[in-house]
This record gives sequence, C-alpha cells and structure tokens, in this order.
Amino acid sequence: MTYCLAIKLNQHLVFASDSRTNAGVDQISTYKKMNVFPIADDRIFIILTAGNLATTQAVINLIQRDLDDSEAEPSLRTVRYLFDAAHYIGRMSLRVQAEHGEALRQSESSAEASFILGGQVGERPHNIYLIYPQGNYITASAETPFLQIGETKYGKPILDRIIKPETSLEDAARCALVSLDSTMRSNISVGPPIDLVTYRKDTFKLEHAMSFDAGSDFLRTLQESWGAGLRRAFSELPRLEWT
Amino acid sequence: MTYCLAIKLNQHLVFASDSRTNAGVDQISTYKKMNVFPIADDRIFIILTAGNLATTQAVINLIQRDLDDSEAEPSLRTVRYLFDAAHYIGRMSLRVQAEHGEALRQSESSAEASFILGGQVGERPHNIYLIYPQGNYITASAETPFLQIGETKYGKPILDRIIKPETSLEDAARCALVSLDSTMRSNISVGPPIDLVTYRKDTFKLEHAMSFDAGSDFLRTLQESWGAGLRRAFSELPRLEWT
Repeated sequence: MTYCLAIKLNQHLVFASDSRTNAGVDQISTYKKMNVFPIADDRIFIILTAGNLATTQAVINLIQRDLDDSEAEPSLRTVRYLFDAAHYIGRMSLRVQAEHGEALRQSESSAEASFILGGQVGERPHNIYLIYPQGNYITASAETPFLQIGETKYGKPILDRIIKPETSLEDAARCALVSLDSTMRSNISVGPPIDLVTYRKDTFKLEHAMSFDAGSDFLRTLQESWGAGLRRAFSELPRLEWT
Repeated sequence: MTYCLAIKLNQHLVFASDSRTNAGVDQISTYKKMNVFPIADDRIFIILTAGNLATTQAVINLIQRDLDDSEAEPSLRTVRYLFDAAHYIGRMSLRVQAEHGEALRQSESSAEASFILGGQVGERPHNIYLIYPQGNYITASAETPFLQIGETKYGKPILDRIIKPETSLEDAARCALVSLDSTMRSNISVGPPIDLVTYRKDTFKLEHAMSFDAGSDFLRTLQESWGAGLRRAFSELPRLEWT
C-alpha cells in the first residue's frame, strides 16, 4: 500500500509521502513516491503516486520521455493550466493500464494507480489535483484543502481537525508528518522514509525538501512529543459522570 | 456504515457503538447496534452488529427465539464457553446470509454482517470475539486488546496509542468515545447516538450503560476538550529544522 497527501494553503503547497511498496506481505520494498518536475522559471509540478508500481513507474517515465522530446505535445512543458496536466496524466495512466490491465486481471491483480498532482503554471494559482485510476480528477476546496491517495483513512481525522487554508506552513507540515506517522503505526503496509516538500506560490522551485528515515531523530522526537501530547489531552478530558 | 468496538481490560470490558444505518446516502436511519443479553446469574453476553441490517436483525431475533425456547440447543443459555457462543452466532449469521445472499447478489447488494461478542460464562474469563461474515471468529490479544467492526480505520490510531490491558476503565471508556467521535467527524456514514456500556468481570450484569445523542452536553464538552488538547499537543511539537 501507500499513503500520500497534499495540502493547499493560501501561500503554500505541502506534499508528503511514505516509501513502502508491497506485493503481498513477503515482497516489501522501498520506493520513493514523490516526483518533482521543476521544469522552467514559470512552472513546477510535484507528482505523488499510489497503486500498481509498474503503472506508476511507467507513467512517470512517459512524462519524462515527453519532457525530453521538445516536439512532444502535450507535455508538462506545454500545458497551459494545471488541470491540463491532470488531464494529461490521467490519459497516460489509462493508456498504461489498458496495456497491462487484462493480463493483470487474469492473475487477479490490478493495474490501477492514482496520483496527486500539485504545482503552478505561470500566473495561474497554485493548486493540487487528485487523479483517479479512471483518469478523471478533482481538486481540493476551501473547506477540505487537502487530498489523499492510498491508505487514507487512518490519517484523515487529524487533517480534518487541523488543516485550513490559513493554517501556517509549519503546522501544515507537522500535521502531514503526524498524519503519516499515525498511518504507519496502524498499518504495516505504509512505512518510512517519509518525504516532505513544500512550495511557496509564485517561486517555481521547492522551498523545503526533507526526508525522514525510520531512525530519524526528528521523527522520533515528533512521535514522542505527539504521544505525550495525546496522553495529556486524554488526561484532561472531562470525566464521565459515573465517576 | 457502522462503527462498533470492544475493549478487553484486565478487570473490565468496554463496548461502544454508533447508531447510523444507511442504504445509499438517501436512506439513512438510526438503529441501535448494541444488544445486551444478561441471561442469568452466571452468564452475560453483549453483541454489537455491523453490515446488512436485515441480516443482523434476523440473527438477533433468532438468538432471542432460541432463548425463549427452553428446549433449544445450543442457545446463549446453554453454551459452556464464550467461544461456543461466537461459533453459534457465526453459524446463525451464515444461515441467514445463505437464505438471502443470492437474491441480494443479483441486485449487487450483500447480505454480509459481522459481529462483536463479549461477556462471560461462569468462572471462565471475560473476553471479546469478532465474528467475521464467513462465520469464523477471533479474540483479542494482550498486545491488541480491542476489536472493531464496520468503519474501523479512522478510529484505530487513537486506540493503538492508548489502549492496553492495564488501561483504567475511565480512560478506556473515554478513548472509545474519542475513537467514535473521530470516526463521525471523518465519515458521514457513522453517527450518533453513541451507546457505551461497561462490564466488570465476575458480576454478570452491566456496570454502566450510557447513551450520548448528538446534542449531548458531555459529548460536546468531550469534543471541545479533545480538540483543544490536540491543538495544544500540536503547538508543542518540535519545530522543523527549517525554521
């Protein structure tokens, strides 16, 4: 499995992803699921991937091949809107799935993959999109300014409580890490390293890029602090009336 | 959907359940999913239900019918072990599913249901079981002393962090409420009232039974306190090194 999320703040985008890939419990590997395409002074794309690893690798390879070919149309170099890029990735994903899907279905597997795309094109707003396995896509909203793919449920309650468009970058980044950490604790198919990048609008390059492996001092301190904070929040809950 | 959980402490059992039932988003109803059978001075059973409402209602009705028939064998009155009761409920569930399953499959529905059974029989230990739609069943462990059915993922991280066999009854009960509240916030198919009961081993009757509806003062205070505690835990997390 996988867990990736993106947050759209008023001034920033935040992206975080785990690195565990598995085909059954006896075939577990580590693959980075975050791909950054800082293409030019006026466009940047960050793509997170979940689902069939062969599909997501092929899609990323094809995106790169189109970028290497100055004649390719469309490509991330030529799209005029971020949603054009979402459409392009969705069609690419469908094409790869169509090639391998039938054979995979015969062995009771799935070629399906989903993607989160974020970034900015020219003077248009920074934004994030979720691209479904069917190739269609949605963006976030002011009420729900985040998107998730993969094993999304364990880490959603903390996002629901904390994340708003006006949340500070620091809080949003730490919330993304806590959301990932909670998911790793509850589901063995999601694992470190955790990749975290942030983008400030209108800069067209990453602002911060960090990776936290299992032994990371910061991640351990964060986990301990969060655990202690939760226990204290617990100890201060109102007592049930029976006591 | 539904969310029910049971916790096995050294001296107690805790059960909590929501009350929302839906068949599509345009047919939402309120049904209690907690059934208590305080059968005699030496046995008590608490049954939580999730899945197809017709199946779970039929199973509960059949359990009651067997109890009303002094000749019935097996019944909750006659089982000698709690796992015999789990086996009995599993077989009952399969029988009901077999009768209606094919017709439901033809309309792309499912007759499946799952159950949590807890309680105590005679001098044997208090315990909890999860009964799968296939009729088989598992109990909890010292490492994972809780069981969940229905929409389980949103509320699992807090249980993973807090619940141990030696957790106090007060903390376990509040943790169950927080787990349910987090799930209700993140998933509209889980909703109030929340039912909460506790059992102290060797007493063969409920110790506490409470129900919290959407307007409950206690639930609102709990939500506010938990939200404030989470925000404070957040504010005290270590800062990322970029700042």
